[in-house]
Amino acid sequence: MSDVVFDWSRQQRTGVPEAVFCEGKNPAAIAGIVRKAQDRGAALLLTRLDAGLLTLCPDEIAAALDHDPVSRTAILHGPAKVGAGAPPDSLDVGLVCAGTTDIPTLREAERTLDFLGIGSSAYCDLGVAGLWRLLDRIDEIRRHRVLIAVAGMEGALFSVLAGLVSAPLIAVPAPVGYGLSEGGFAALVGAMSTCAPGIACVNIGNGFGAAVLAAKMLAIGRTSTLRCAQS
Amino acid sequence: MSDVVFDWSRQQRTGVPEAVFCEGKNPAAIAGIVRKAQDRGAALLLTRLDAGLLTLCPDEIAAALDHDPVSRTAILHGPAKVGAGAPPDSLDVGLVCAGTTDIPTLREAERTLDFLGIGSSAYCDLGVAGLWRLLDRIDEIRRHRVLIAVAGMEGALFSVLAGLVSAPLIAVPAPVGYGLSEGGFAALVGAMSTCAPGIACVNIGNGFGAAVLAAKMLAIGRTSTLRCAQS
Amino acid sequence: MSDVVFDWSRQQRTGVPEAVFCEGKNPAAIAGIVRKAQDRGAALLLTRLDAGLLTLCPDEIAAALDHDPVSRTAILHGPAKVGAGAPPDSLDVGLVCAGTTDIPTLREAERTLDFLGIGSSAYCDLGVAGLWRLLDRIDEIRRHRVLIAVAGMEGALFSVLAGLVSAPLIAVPAPVGYGLSEGGFAALVGAMSTCAPGIACVNIGNGFGAAVLAAKMLAIGRTSTLRCAQS
Amino acid sequence: MSDVVFDWSRQQRTGVPEAVFCEGKNPAAIAGIVRKAQDRGAALLLTRLDAGLLTLCPDEIAAALDHDPVSRTAILHGPAKVGAGAPPDSLDVGLVCAGTTDIPTLREAERTLDFLGIGSSAYCDLGVAGLWRLLDRIDEIRRHRVLIAVAGMEGALFSVLAGLVSAPLIAVPAPVGYGLSEGGFAALVGAMSTCAPGIACVNIGNGFGAAVLAAKMLAIGRTSTLRCAQS
Amino acid sequence: MSDVVFDWSRQQRTGVPEAVFCEGKNPAAIAGIVRKAQDRGAALLLTRLDAGLLTLCPDEIAAALDHDPVSRTAILHGPAKVGAGAPPDSLDVGLVCAGTTDIPTLREAERTLDFLGIGSSAYCDLGVAGLWRLLDRIDEIRRHRVLIAVAGMEGALFSVLAGLVSAPLIAVPAPVGYGLSEGGFAALVGAMSTCAPGIACVNIGNGFGAAVLAAKMLAIGRTSTLRCAQS
Amino acid sequence: MSDVVFDWSRQQRTGVPEAVFCEGKNPAAIAGIVRKAQDRGAALLLTRLDAGLLTLCPDEIAAALDHDPVSRTAILHGPAKVGAGAPPDSLDVGLVCAGTTDIPTLREAERTLDFLGIGSSAYCDLGVAGLWRLLDRIDEIRRHRVLIAVAGMEGALFSVLAGLVSAPLIAVPAPVGYGLSEGGFAALVGAMSTCAPGIACVNIGNGFGAAVLAAKMLAIGRTSTLRCAQS
Amino acid sequence: MSDVVFDWSRQQRTGVPEAVFCEGKNPAAIAGIVRKAQDRGAALLLTRLDAGLLTLCPDEIAAALDHDPVSRTAILHGPAKVGAGAPPDSLDVGLVCAGTTDIPTLREAERTLDFLGIGSSAYCDLGVAGLWRLLDRIDEIRRHRVLIAVAGMEGALFSVLAGLVSAPLIAVPAPVGYGLSEGGFAALVGAMSTCAPGIACVNIGNGFGAAVLAAKMLAIGRTSTLRCAQS
Amino acid sequence: MSDVVFDWSRQQRTGVPEAVFCEGKNPAAIAGIVRKAQDRGAALLLTRLDAGLLTLCPDEIAAALDHDPVSRTAILHGPAKVGAGAPPDSLDVGLVCAGTTDIPTLREAERTLDFLGIGSSAYCDLGVAGLWRLLDRIDEIRRHRVLIAVAGMEGALFSVLAGLVSAPLIAVPAPVGYGLSEGGFAALVGAMSTCAPGIACVNIGNGFGAAVLAAKMLAIGRTSTLRCAQS
Repeated sequence: MSDVVFDWSRQQRTGVPEAVFCEGKNPAAIAGIVRKAQDRGAALLLTRLDAGLLTLCPDEIAAALDHDPVSRTAILHGPAKVGAGAPPDSLDVGLVCAGTTDIPTLREAERTLDFLGIGSSAYCDLGVAGLWRLLDRIDEIRRHRVLIAVAGMEGALFSVLAGLVSAPLIAVPAPVGYGLSEGGFAALVGAMSTCAPGIACVNIGNGFGAAVLAAKMLAIGRTSTLRCAQS
Repeated sequence: MSDVVFDWSRQQRTGVPEAVFCEGKNPAAIAGIVRKAQDRGAALLLTRLDAGLLTLCPDEIAAALDHDPVSRTAILHGPAKVGAGAPPDSLDVGLVCAGTTDIPTLREAERTLDFLGIGSSAYCDLGVAGLWRLLDRIDEIRRHRVLIAVAGMEGALFSVLAGLVSAPLIAVPAPVGYGLSEGGFAALVGAMSTCAPGIACVNIGNGFGAAVLAAKMLAIGRTSTLRCAQS
Repeated sequence: MSDVVFDWSRQQRTGVPEAVFCEGKNPAAIAGIVRKAQDRGAALLLTRLDAGLLTLCPDEIAAALDHDPVSRTAILHGPAKVGAGAPPDSLDVGLVCAGTTDIPTLREAERTLDFLGIGSSAYCDLGVAGLWRLLDRIDEIRRHRVLIAVAGMEGALFSVLAGLVSAPLIAVPAPVGYGLSEGGFAALVGAMSTCAPGIACVNIGNGFGAAVLAAKMLAIGRTSTLRCAQS
Repeated sequence: MSDVVFDWSRQQRTGVPEAVFCEGKNPAAIAGIVRKAQDRGAALLLTRLDAGLLTLCPDEIAAALDHDPVSRTAILHGPAKVGAGAPPDSLDVGLVCAGTTDIPTLREAERTLDFLGIGSSAYCDLGVAGLWRLLDRIDEIRRHRVLIAVAGMEGALFSVLAGLVSAPLIAVPAPVGYGLSEGGFAALVGAMSTCAPGIACVNIGNGFGAAVLAAKMLAIGRTSTLRCAQS
Repeated sequence: MSDVVFDWSRQQRTGVPEAVFCEGKNPAAIAGIVRKAQDRGAALLLTRLDAGLLTLCPDEIAAALDHDPVSRTAILHGPAKVGAGAPPDSLDVGLVCAGTTDIPTLREAERTLDFLGIGSSAYCDLGVAGLWRLLDRIDEIRRHRVLIAVAGMEGALFSVLAGLVSAPLIAVPAPVGYGLSEGGFAALVGAMSTCAPGIACVNIGNGFGAAVLAAKMLAIGRTSTLRCAQS
Repeated sequence: MSDVVFDWSRQQRTGVPEAVFCEGKNPAAIAGIVRKAQDRGAALLLTRLDAGLLTLCPDEIAAALDHDPVSRTAILHGPAKVGAGAPPDSLDVGLVCAGTTDIPTLREAERTLDFLGIGSSAYCDLGVAGLWRLLDRIDEIRRHRVLIAVAGMEGALFSVLAGLVSAPLIAVPAPVGYGLSEGGFAALVGAMSTCAPGIACVNIGNGFGAAVLAAKMLAIGRTSTLRCAQS
Repeated sequence: MSDVVFDWSRQQRTGVPEAVFCEGKNPAAIAGIVRKAQDRGAALLLTRLDAGLLTLCPDEIAAALDHDPVSRTAILHGPAKVGAGAPPDSLDVGLVCAGTTDIPTLREAERTLDFLGIGSSAYCDLGVAGLWRLLDRIDEIRRHRVLIAVAGMEGALFSVLAGLVSAPLIAVPAPVGYGLSEGGFAALVGAMSTCAPGIACVNIGNGFGAAVLAAKMLAIGRTSTLRCAQS
Repeated sequence: MSDVVFDWSRQQRTGVPEAVFCEGKNPAAIAGIVRKAQDRGAALLLTRLDAGLLTLCPDEIAAALDHDPVSRTAILHGPAKVGAGAPPDSLDVGLVCAGTTDIPTLREAERTLDFLGIGSSAYCDLGVAGLWRLLDRIDEIRRHRVLIAVAGMEGALFSVLAGLVSAPLIAVPAPVGYGLSEGGFAALVGAMSTCAPGIACVNIGNGFGAAVLAAKMLAIGRTSTLRCAQS
């Protein structure tokens, strides 16, 4: 009954290959999905895969995956990594976060961009309580085509940054805070209520979705669809 | 005390000229802002300007504005509408809405795009309860570089449409619904919780913000910054 | 003081035998209930019975139960499984879910239908982000008399499916999601706010209730009341 | 831009003809929809159509509609009311409400059933604070194939009634209450949290949806699809 | 800094001796409080004292307490239990609960009444989904001077019971439920929104507060203030 | 269909005569109810009856009612006001409110007590920000058998007062406040979360329910049931 | 019953004279309060007094008040405005707001400071979407002893400003916004969740409270208590 | 990527040295921050550092820190504790809490004041349910220049205390409560909705922020900026 119906045509249709959200899946289900991808010779991205859950998977599955514990992502590389085009351009996406506790979410976005063959640079710990930190690096940040900002607490970084740049800004509320900002809800409310026009918001902690959105934005001006770096 | 501090450099800095959100402002304040723009010879976009509020403004101000009651937007055209570039391309942005009550929000986006000199086409009343309506027109919709979808109620249109296209999709929850969907909150929750990766969400009824975001996306692949059509 | 007052007449009165919700009950209480049913020679359904909780029950109780860890249900079969009627018809109920993490809830519904002697077929992983998966199987799904759909995240499956079928659709929000969809609330809001008329909603994760509702619907056109398959 | 895309095939596909939710639509839009239906010779149901809004519609449109101010529904009857089958059976649906302020919602359901050619009987003011009122009539109520219950405040009627009958029960929370039950939310929470299995819940005030759901339930045991009484 | 300021005069002032809410207190703090009471020769009631927390307290403290794990209450009996008046009358308070999972809360009330020297009788598992269970015992229940009802889920018991009795009814929402009734909030909303006038509501799980309130009600018609049974 | 089913036996059963909540009822319905009571020679209490709504009722109905615009209550006096017992004792109930904007709710309680033949005294504007105001009158307040406190904003009055008296305290949150206390929700949360044991809470603005609860408390120590003063 | 109990000793006790919150009070009550103050020769501040409500008050009352329609405040000046000390110092309090719609709240604070004899300067329309506007004036702003910031929408101004100054900052969320920021709740959540330490938050729109808090802060370093300018 | 960008100039700019919020940081990150401070010879405050997390840090790091498990704070003392000014004055800040479970939050404030070189005195367990406890000590409490009050449950202490003193009061809601006061939200709502003007509110459990705010208030009347006691 529980057979996965893999959406192999998703890349064709939407420009983005399917990824697997692992929270709530058991080790057997995850292993089954990875084997299906291996059989097909397809690259695969797994998100929300805790190190603890990974150790419960069969050894050969765990060994086949390139796992990053901070972002809880794992990549199954494709059979051959051909240099099928220009190398990734680190000016494509700028990743900015407010504090060091936002890094797991930022890194989920960074790893997803890697998987999609898109270059990026990260700028961490630039929260607006020390505005000079952001202003010191704003010229570098401005050079990127798309920006992804990650912030918890009140998420004031989103509005300030959006007022300083012309690139589209994707706001990712981080699940960071306590009391009224518990779970990242204050940051989400802040991002959606911003006085700075043109911010794109995604769900709390959804670094994956932000990266996919960035990829789709970058693809607007290009003739070919998105390339998956590993396949 | 209450002098407006106009952000005339916003276009320089962020690629988007400032606009004026009129809800909560009195007629005198609105007239003052319009006069400042006239003095400077600048084009101006006013949003959330009810027909009722407009009639309370001085006659010469109301006469100077191109007002649309459905979207509650008004445009102060610049002194000369020079054909400073290519004509707007109606394939730039596709505007899709679920029901006819979503049209005011959709039209706020459409008018903002007009103001920014960006072409668009609208596809109305394509809610997923009659899926064939969307599927009938999906080939047309797919040709656009950026999509803006407007939906109230449960906002299922966002997920379905995002799964069918490769362009980035901007979801605008419409303030349409009752009971649990009162005020557009169900649509907002639906857009943010979508199982389809890569949706950009903005605040409820924020057609203006969606249009600005679309403009920023389109500008990624272009050398020049955004042009304001009327100036 | 804590003696259970079993509602043995419920089947007579409402067409549905009583079931036992085990969350929050201690092993002794559960064992006592099972023994009461054994003494009476009655079949019994237990829901929300974790494998961990079951191991704390007396061995002879655990042995008497047919337990399914995925759905956390256990069935105490009646003394004789007489073929008291037509075999279950797998076209009675179609069970559809959006993703593999929705399966525990779907399976609670499936097991309850089994217990009530009602046939069903399951269709898994048909979330609308890959619409073709649903459309590929819609002809099969349409043949069922009643449909139960299970979905977490934004629950867009409910509206889409309801627009494609004439059978009544029971929506079960699954406790699947994060951020704004944490705990299944986004799916619940989506089901209740649907633009597709005629969806019946039950509480988050309530596969049992959905099955009972399906059974009651099926009994409308029949002369006899519902049969309990195991008694 | 704002042309309605009417879903004329909905009845074919889902067994239920399309209806028009009028809240938020302007008189011109409503008149346009009615004329389209008249041109096609189709019957039409309009919901949430206030008497005030109706008077703003063109006279010939208002005259063509059979309007009920209590339920805010209007029916455009088809060209001929042929006796195409058995007369409606008043035992098909029983409509029960807790208080007299619930009647507008109950009547929306009743009018929708009328429109769909389905018989019904109403039982009003049977709130559980005076339990005898419900018990006095429970034998009559029990004879119906499907039950629709409407209640505001805490909605205790839903659980009590569901425990006394074998027919499926559709709970419609009414927008009745104040303080913690403001807007009908307490009744909705009550219906979804019920200890009585097998209750189908719809959105607050959604009498229309409840009637459509009842119609779909009744159609399970019948060979033909739902008939629209007026066409 | 952290010395407790015990309110020994509370009984004088309010008729009710102080009690100690142990959740969030560490073992040393609890032991200190108990020793203070012992030194003073005072009886003491401790609530929300988990068995696990108790085992972390010094042995002689644990030994001095009469602990009940179900209700998580502990009583430090006074130096002498003098029969200083009439024996408790079991008709003073009737305790009614809807399901067996409500018993911990009901028992907190029962133990508090014991401590206050007030008699009571308990009626369990009388939820309204099987209305006969309540009606079977309603004559007994009616004989009590004050009623305390405990229910989770939707809390329909409160409204039904209040409509059947003339004694004041204290509603205690139990932290029992899932989805929309998670944590007992649906029951609380139900109790506060009841259509039956004259229900007194206390916080979720607050069996202690309900008992104190009952004691205060019973004291209205008496000349003396409340007695503490153990002192 | 819309005939009211009056619960004439409620007084017999619960000790309290039925009252009519008028919000959401139309003038014809209210007039019908009053005429039914007149025909039967019964006294009647109507709550939430705005002066504006009353003027829409037939003149002879308005004339028959003793209406108080502040509390929005109306009383239909019985045919004879016999001195059937002891005169009301003003020490029965003490009504305390925090500010002058709480008076409409306090007065709904006071009028209901009048209707039930129960005496009371009111103490207004004793909010805790000026604690001396409460302490100045606390000796008077302490003499009452039951206390009803009405407060909006944060409702701190409830906790402070409950700590100073031995009578049972009924807290009525008033719909007074703004921002986080909008609609009276902060006061409700405060009353339910109080650190002072033994407070009975009712819904926001429910002065009627508080009075009925007080009446039930006072009846505990009396042999006869509650008397309705006007009948 | 409804006599106001004026807290004339409040200034003695807390350093701040009592003020009157007029929302929800009727004209007669307001007139009564003003007359009491006149009789006593006391100055008085009235807040939330709409121009419309003022016109319903007796003429001589309206004439006696210095009313400001923007802030909805009125001041009853004392009998003599003696220059009893140093003139107000405009460097005491700096008032900063994000947009022109925040001005009514800012002005409530400014008028309250006036009433309390405290000097202030206002800096308007400095929202962070155009950061230069704030940075241009930050040196002026930094010279004030206490800062009050008013912002609606997401309230990012609070965090940014607090990171740039050493004076204590009082954040007043303004009731400005729509969708997720409706009513000022997003700004409140932002102020409370700020990453910048040392922000003092007050309720939405509470300019009065912010001014009183500022006055109390300024009084710390002074020997005398607060002076009321008008008395 | 994850390098911390320390805001060493914060003290210069805002008068308060940066502190480190440790929740959500891993041991390596914390150790890195401490080493940076050691290298620079700077004092450092760490908040929300659980004893459990501390034991996972390198031994020499743990040894260098002055850790307090109750408040979960750690201080890295500067290289020399020079007596650079007047000793701390215990009358500067008064710390008041309602119950013993509020002490962890109170102590976070106390430790932060210590770190900032500010004197304070604590007054514990003075909740308003036993008002005499507060009144007994109010004369002592009144002598402080700034007050910090910590309370969970309904937070009535804030309003009562603010009405009795002239010093500014900082309200810190404590994460203490259950049911409707779960997580401290009732106390927060109470503090923000207070009827006593001039209360400064901070986030739930934010003792650190309250102390910084108190320090900024005290610095108003002083010529020098805040001193950090340990550097």
